[in-house]
Amino acid sequence: MQRKYMAFGVTAAIALCALLPTSVRIHAQSDDLPSWADGPARKAIVEFVRVTTDKSSPKFVPPEDRIATFDQDGTTWVSHPIYSQLLFAFDRVIALAPQHPEWKSMQPFGCVLSGDKAAMSKFTMKDLETILMATHTGMTPEAFQAIVRNWMATAKHPRFNRPFAEMAYRPMLEVMRYLRDHGFKTYIVTGGGQDFVRAYAQQVYGIPSEQIIGSALDTQYTYNKAGQGILIKEPKVLLDNDHAGKPEDIYLFLGKRPIAAFGNSTGDRQMLEYTQAGGGARLMMLVLHDDAVREFAYGPAQGLPDTRIGTFPQSLYDEAKRRSWTVISMKNDWKRIFAFE
Amino acid sequence: MQRKYMAFGVTAAIALCALLPTSVRIHAQSDDLPSWADGPARKAIVEFVRVTTDKSSPKFVPPEDRIATFDQDGTTWVSHPIYSQLLFAFDRVIALAPQHPEWKSMQPFGCVLSGDKAAMSKFTMKDLETILMATHTGMTPEAFQAIVRNWMATAKHPRFNRPFAEMAYRPMLEVMRYLRDHGFKTYIVTGGGQDFVRAYAQQVYGIPSEQIIGSALDTQYTYNKAGQGILIKEPKVLLDNDHAGKPEDIYLFLGKRPIAAFGNSTGDRQMLEYTQAGGGARLMMLVLHDDAVREFAYGPAQGLPDTRIGTFPQSLYDEAKRRSWTVISMKNDWKRIFAFE
Repeated sequence: MQRKYMAFGVTAAIALCALLPTSVRIHAQSDDLPSWADGPARKAIVEFVRVTTDKSSPKFVPPEDRIATFDQDGTTWVSHPIYSQLLFAFDRVIALAPQHPEWKSMQPFGCVLSGDKAAMSKFTMKDLETILMATHTGMTPEAFQAIVRNWMATAKHPRFNRPFAEMAYRPMLEVMRYLRDHGFKTYIVTGGGQDFVRAYAQQVYGIPSEQIIGSALDTQYTYNKAGQGILIKEPKVLLDNDHAGKPEDIYLFLGKRPIAAFGNSTGDRQMLEYTQAGGGARLMMLVLHDDAVREFAYGPAQGLPDTRIGTFPQSLYDEAKRRSWTVISMKNDWKRIFAFE
Repeated sequence: MQRKYMAFGVTAAIALCALLPTSVRIHAQSDDLPSWADGPARKAIVEFVRVTTDKSSPKFVPPEDRIATFDQDGTTWVSHPIYSQLLFAFDRVIALAPQHPEWKSMQPFGCVLSGDKAAMSKFTMKDLETILMATHTGMTPEAFQAIVRNWMATAKHPRFNRPFAEMAYRPMLEVMRYLRDHGFKTYIVTGGGQDFVRAYAQQVYGIPSEQIIGSALDTQYTYNKAGQGILIKEPKVLLDNDHAGKPEDIYLFLGKRPIAAFGNSTGDRQMLEYTQAGGGARLMMLVLHDDAVREFAYGPAQGLPDTRIGTFPQSLYDEAKRRSWTVISMKNDWKRIFAFE
């Protein structure tokens, strides 16, 4: 199974190499991508940056069109065993419970308050939405982000027992920096909450809030007691930024098509397709979680456990192969996964 | 009446000056704003840029927060006697009529096809929406923008008989450039169609598509015959970017509050309020159309004709005075309005 997805990367690298004068150096500066093994994934990245930024290249792309989009959960940081935003929401239910005595006997809140993990693992999308709406609305975005930042400073990942900021993948942070150093603009394009990610994206990824595209609730413009204009987060979904929502929202925000896109699941499929459809040099990459020792291993196509987070089914493999997308093996392509290692 | 709104600008300038060491030079480079008369509006702009960009100023703003938002119609280019996007839509009805023989006897299309200006002047919002949906959807955004660019290259303004690109106000182009030269990011925040403005914004304003926030229709992700991912513009409003929609969408796109905002009507009121509410140095400006000779004169508060485009009622005047916003008199503050003068 391992050989199978490795083959995609090799295929992509060979395809790219065929387009180049053989004498050209295709290596990055030795310290640009230190966490990456010298394999097909690293080669695909370096080669893509070379052909798009070398003015003499027929695939040169002007800086204003160098857009690279990154899914977040499972692509730029750990999403297992549970999305960090859900952990945040559960922690908020506990924090807000004294103001809501009725929650104790009211589902889905009751399960969270009693710590019933078996029941919580069976939460439906509707249950999760109820919890998200109750914990993410009725305040200004500024107040919400202050709560998120406070949580980020104190909460710890259940397996690694470290702050979530340290759950970012070092190789992906290197790729983001490497792309920015070559005139790219890097965007997070996440199914997660836009406000949630914006609260820490500058600190964790070096990405400013205007380059975070995510699922978003409506806001309502109103006035505070001093007569000043403020916004209040409303319990109504405005953007569901996953699957087809990703290319739709990328277009809404940018009016441009990315030339590089990174994902790890079916939720990223359309973003990668849309990126590739622009023609010219394109880089599409999918992170495969195949390292149970250093991180997690899941994804049915590899005979790895299926989970409801970050699905990477056989059909996505088949599409990656057919469209020459590069699959990144955490196990083989990443020498180092976390900064704390 | 003239004296009244001039007083607002003077008040704002005095308020700003009171905050400064008197020895500081508050003039722009002599050629930065050549189309601006040396009055209170120009002084407010120059002073705002000085206090926000001088590192020793207590009101210094780091470059990443230097966000300036501009309404378009009536603020950065001519919106009278009719919004350019409506003219575009009427021209599209005529161009598409051969494919829609039923339109001849179907309102509101029939009036457009017969050139019945009296009937067209009475179009309701519903009529206009019908025409916009019929002419702006069912194609990719790329195809739509190509049509807009072609129209921009050929259509002429009914009074000035020049291409619409020349309808941009030279003083506002100067302010945009002046702000960008001082590390600001300039955004168009328009009630008009985002896709429409994006088609020409780089050419007319030097602003890239990702810095255009406008009213937007939904898009639908689908596949072309080659199996490539494409978007199709749908007849469904996603963002109504006017009035309260402006601050809501600014937050959606940027996650930041502007520190400078320019408008000309009640549709911009909330954007200016929201900008000011951030505290610290802020610049809020409203363009008053009081120059019937060189452009147009309208706005009931000045005893000028009321129109349904770009309403500037007494209540907006009162608010501008109360909140110390600067009102720009086209007649007195702009030495030159158009590049072709």
